[in-house]
Amino acid sequence: VTATPLGPGPEFDRIRAIAQALGGAAAGLGDDCAFLPGGWCASTDASIEGIHFRFDWLSAEEIGWRATMAALSDLAAVGAEAEAVLVALAVRPGSPNDLPTRLMIGAGEAANAVGARVVGGDLNAGPTTTLAVTVLGRATRPIRRSGAAPGNELWVTGRLGGARAAWQAWEAGGAPSAEARARFAHPIARIAAGRRLATQATAMIDLSDGLAGDAGHLASASGVRVVVDLDRLPIDPAVTAGDPALAAAAGGEDYELLVALPGQVGERLGPELKTALDLDLTRIGVVDSPSAGEVLFLRLGQPVSLEGFNHFR
Amino acid sequence: VTATPLGPGPEFDRIRAIAQALGGAAAGLGDDCAFLPGGWCASTDASIEGIHFRFDWLSAEEIGWRATMAALSDLAAVGAEAEAVLVALAVRPGSPNDLPTRLMIGAGEAANAVGARVVGGDLNAGPTTTLAVTVLGRATRPIRRSGAAPGNELWVTGRLGGARAAWQAWEAGGAPSAEARARFAHPIARIAAGRRLATQATAMIDLSDGLAGDAGHLASASGVRVVVDLDRLPIDPAVTAGDPALAAAAGGEDYELLVALPGQVGERLGPELKTALDLDLTRIGVVDSPSAGEVLFLRLGQPVSLEGFNHFR
Repeated sequence: VTATPLGPGPEFDRIRAIAQALGGAAAGLGDDCAFLPGGWCASTDASIEGIHFRFDWLSAEEIGWRATMAALSDLAAVGAEAEAVLVALAVRPGSPNDLPTRLMIGAGEAANAVGARVVGGDLNAGPTTTLAVTVLGRATRPIRRSGAAPGNELWVTGRLGGARAAWQAWEAGGAPSAEARARFAHPIARIAAGRRLATQATAMIDLSDGLAGDAGHLASASGVRVVVDLDRLPIDPAVTAGDPALAAAAGGEDYELLVALPGQVGERLGPELKTALDLDLTRIGVVDSPSAGEVLFLRLGQPVSLEGFNHFR
Repeated sequence: VTATPLGPGPEFDRIRAIAQALGGAAAGLGDDCAFLPGGWCASTDASIEGIHFRFDWLSAEEIGWRATMAALSDLAAVGAEAEAVLVALAVRPGSPNDLPTRLMIGAGEAANAVGARVVGGDLNAGPTTTLAVTVLGRATRPIRRSGAAPGNELWVTGRLGGARAAWQAWEAGGAPSAEARARFAHPIARIAAGRRLATQATAMIDLSDGLAGDAGHLASASGVRVVVDLDRLPIDPAVTAGDPALAAAAGGEDYELLVALPGQVGERLGPELKTALDLDLTRIGVVDSPSAGEVLFLRLGQPVSLEGFNHFR
């Protein structure tokens, strides 16, 4: 009972198994948000200590901000306005007394930054500090992953690879540059950009897994082949190691938007986003034919293979 | 910025601190649900391995059911219809491959049992198996904790203490009776009863912490003193140890409803609930005067002191 065909990978195999087992007890699994009557969109996203964050990398406020923006990014991906945030918080016993408050200050600042408010939550002691963030918003024209059509162009907001650069520096035992750290610690859900893009988009997804993975999800859901020209990627200046284009494509958790637009639309929306939001919009590829969800990545005109960004694993 | 005065206890001290720190970034914290435009009500509730459930006590399907009903109970408490469920699932590495599916089958069955569907979720590997369940519903006349007025009567649905009896048997190293186990493993969120009671209620709350604690939350939010006659409590037949009335009052997680009703209303609604839902409605006390939230428990006409039910701690 998935409305949306799901892409490849073990996570999607499991979601497929769940959707099949649930039958009529489920509806619409597999998109960035659930769509409810009245234009409401809802999504839930957990951030777990040791998987999505570490206390020696980020402050508690930054952890709360990042967890909340990661969830809000799913509203951006469907073109929704952000309205409300709920946080189910589990905090390890022995944590500082002010940890729940500091995490929630970060969550509140993130909500506030995109026009939403924290309206509820749940607080428990638990063995692993976890923030399960649910976001609610409204869209007048909600955009799914599934509408991309041959002839559309693929565009991406902002710059890619910054969050991964920070993560790689920490993992290597070093410290990221201030720029890379800021991209990891203070992502901005592209709510305002998503709403503008949604007026014209045929399909949209946020880059939480990274372009390498998320382009495949959009292609699968839409039943199309997409071609991405890696030479066109807008690379975050914080990306300094390896092949910058491959690093930018592999890097997840930048929370930028990948959007399919009819021809000529991007050329008009790009300057609009730059003026209104100081945000780049870059054409990186095309939707070229019906397909089960193939993604062709080109580097210097040659096909290359990429793997997604799987958190810390 | 809490719309609702919060009751006593360390959890509420922390929620107060969070609400104060968030200021305008938060709204309406402290009731069973958040209230959103269009009559939507939302709540989130985490169930954590070792805190709320154990795999040697319940099957995976029962764990999913119980976690989902616990969250749905917050919709019942405001008189909302249940519409949609989202589950952020974290599963310990090394768990059986079918664990996510089995947990979600239970969640789907619980949603289905009250007319809702699973519309979204999130799946992660994490050190502690956790289900963070968000529920969304709609109410035409949402009932808060805060409207109880002197002269109202206090009524409670169903029978109390069954879940605690199961928990106590397990904690003592034994096995609960089949009746007690069923009350713990298969609670029913009182959605249908909540909707009927909401047509007349002045205040309502679900008994997740137990009557001893939740009566205080209702009293604090309403700014009243309530008097509960423990001799009147509807005691679950599964309660066999200790003073049954004290055990029933102390036991949480039965997910029954405590409701304040104007005089004479309960006498009419009681037979209606019995006929339509086969559910008892029992008068257990009164709202007698304005107060900061005092609760007077009487046992054989004498005041007694009770403590809340704090999960496994």
